[in-house]
Amino acid sequence: MNKACPLPLRQYPRVVMGHGGGGRLMKRLIEDLFMAAFGTSAKEAHDAAVLPGTDGDRLAMTTDSYVIHPLFFPGGNIGTLAVYGTVNDLAMVGARPLWLSAGFILEEGLEIVTLWDIAVSMKEAADRAGVKIVTGDTKVVEKSKGDGIFINTAGVGIVPEGREVHPRAIQPSDVIVLSGDLGRHGMTVMAKREQLAFDQELKSDCAPLAAMTERLFREGIPVHCLRDLTRGGLACALNELAEASGRQIQVREASVPVSSSVRSACELLGLDPFYVANEGRCVVFVPADEADRTVRVLRATGEGRGACVIGSVEDRTPSVVVLKTALGSSRLLDMPEIEQLPRIC
Amino acid sequence: MNKACPLPLRQYPRVVMGHGGGGRLMKRLIEDLFMAAFGTSAKEAHDAAVLPGTDGDRLAMTTDSYVIHPLFFPGGNIGTLAVYGTVNDLAMVGARPLWLSAGFILEEGLEIVTLWDIAVSMKEAADRAGVKIVTGDTKVVEKSKGDGIFINTAGVGIVPEGREVHPRAIQPSDVIVLSGDLGRHGMTVMAKREQLAFDQELKSDCAPLAAMTERLFREGIPVHCLRDLTRGGLACALNELAEASGRQIQVREASVPVSSSVRSACELLGLDPFYVANEGRCVVFVPADEADRTVRVLRATGEGRGACVIGSVEDRTPSVVVLKTALGSSRLLDMPEIEQLPRIC
Repeated sequence: MNKACPLPLRQYPRVVMGHGGGGRLMKRLIEDLFMAAFGTSAKEAHDAAVLPGTDGDRLAMTTDSYVIHPLFFPGGNIGTLAVYGTVNDLAMVGARPLWLSAGFILEEGLEIVTLWDIAVSMKEAADRAGVKIVTGDTKVVEKSKGDGIFINTAGVGIVPEGREVHPRAIQPSDVIVLSGDLGRHGMTVMAKREQLAFDQELKSDCAPLAAMTERLFREGIPVHCLRDLTRGGLACALNELAEASGRQIQVREASVPVSSSVRSACELLGLDPFYVANEGRCVVFVPADEADRTVRVLRATGEGRGACVIGSVEDRTPSVVVLKTALGSSRLLDMPEIEQLPRIC
Repeated sequence: MNKACPLPLRQYPRVVMGHGGGGRLMKRLIEDLFMAAFGTSAKEAHDAAVLPGTDGDRLAMTTDSYVIHPLFFPGGNIGTLAVYGTVNDLAMVGARPLWLSAGFILEEGLEIVTLWDIAVSMKEAADRAGVKIVTGDTKVVEKSKGDGIFINTAGVGIVPEGREVHPRAIQPSDVIVLSGDLGRHGMTVMAKREQLAFDQELKSDCAPLAAMTERLFREGIPVHCLRDLTRGGLACALNELAEASGRQIQVREASVPVSSSVRSACELLGLDPFYVANEGRCVVFVPADEADRTVRVLRATGEGRGACVIGSVEDRTPSVVVLKTALGSSRLLDMPEIEQLPRIC
């Protein structure tokens, strides 16, 4: 190859788990390796690509691979997640999701009935989300060259004319609305994986968010930006948005809802719910005078019934995320170097 | 789950390598499991889905995962393949490929420079094929839960108004034009994998075919059907088309070009070049009176310089593939139960 690899090889000459964790290390791999090789700009980084169209409506495209372990968990399975995760990435750019592709990498020895259950779940999830699985592919690898099943879905949707939902559109004095409580998906999967029994049963929040975000647009709310809170949780999502928008973000810790079951599980495992993955939660950036209406519209949907205002965008530098604690002090809600939880999606 | 799995579980209760091999077993998994679960019809089976559009142009979407082993081979690598393979699936429905997504599943321990070389190859391949990689995703799995790198690409393209390229469009008396000699990709990868040294160096045929097929359309050739000859090779592709079109296909064995190096490698390994995977070859179904022009147009392109007529569509039943041997006898060119070569793409 003529092009020299620009990554600092001395530090990480090989892929480590943290390269897939949603933190700073993954960000560097994406920006310094993939974007450098593909010639794309970090400024374009968003949950889905919005492609130029001939008329006012534009096409959006996104993809995600799913390697979650274990395959089944309370509230869903790898198939449900593969549908909702990709639908949600489309919703986050203001798109109406339409079509999905599904690529399966199966490990020799996977039980056929397991595959069937996953495929049936995908159909149910696609029906609920209003999308069609239109094309697919199946590959098989030898035992111990895979892990049961990996699924990739790519999604295509339409961004209607006039919708400009992007980190660039974030304005000083915007308020940040969170669609529901944090950490259910990550803690449910961790509890299942580690076979922990908690007093209160945990259930993943995984859900399709497109109907909920569509409601915001239909009500005429001027949505500036949307972001779902998957790998790396609320903290990583807000850090990405602070950097991409060049704005400082402030979050009131006491305003962020976390259920008691998630809080107990996090305490037991030494985890911070702000960094735990969600699969049915997003933040919505809207002008301050639209905050109440946004919360009301979100709460009227099933997926957004726990919506509340958690913070605001400030007209100051640096572009970091500041957490205002219940005691009135401030601290940095930093981007972690690596992930807390591997293979959570 | 309420729906019962319709596959004959007694025969294959677990996934075996053959479920990914392009043969009859994979076909059953796709039709009896995925299509049954997703509620899609086998009649729609094509290399890409052609989606309804508002005006004359329609959107096409396709996906493939790539699990080839080894990752690098003479003529390309897993990245080149991931771009060309998906571009070619779009070309086979008459689409102009436009955008690709790229999903990476990395195994812990993969060398970063290897990933860089693959990513750079993908950019070069995308440039050559005239497509853009617009969105991506990275996941990491623990050592021995993957195999270096798996790549999924999904592709989106536009099928211009008036193009109806489909197995259903195959007509009796159509002739079948093959775009070049058979078996290079499969035998190159097998030779590399098994560390076999052959007298003549083998090189994969992997190449983007969209510019070549676009030329056919621009010359006004009434193309009825296109199919690339990947997993399962020419034999599986023609069997699928015979079944999907309900027509009998006849192939003259002596007309099918196979290089001496591929022939020697096949003999050594006990393989039949008609069943070996290609990554830069396709068959073109056209009316008999367009055969000469089709060959001429294909030969004027780099990718189709070895084009020749290899057979025809017959107005008789059953819808099978009949091979006319050099000695004048006939035999069935059957669909194999399982693959000859695992993880060839």
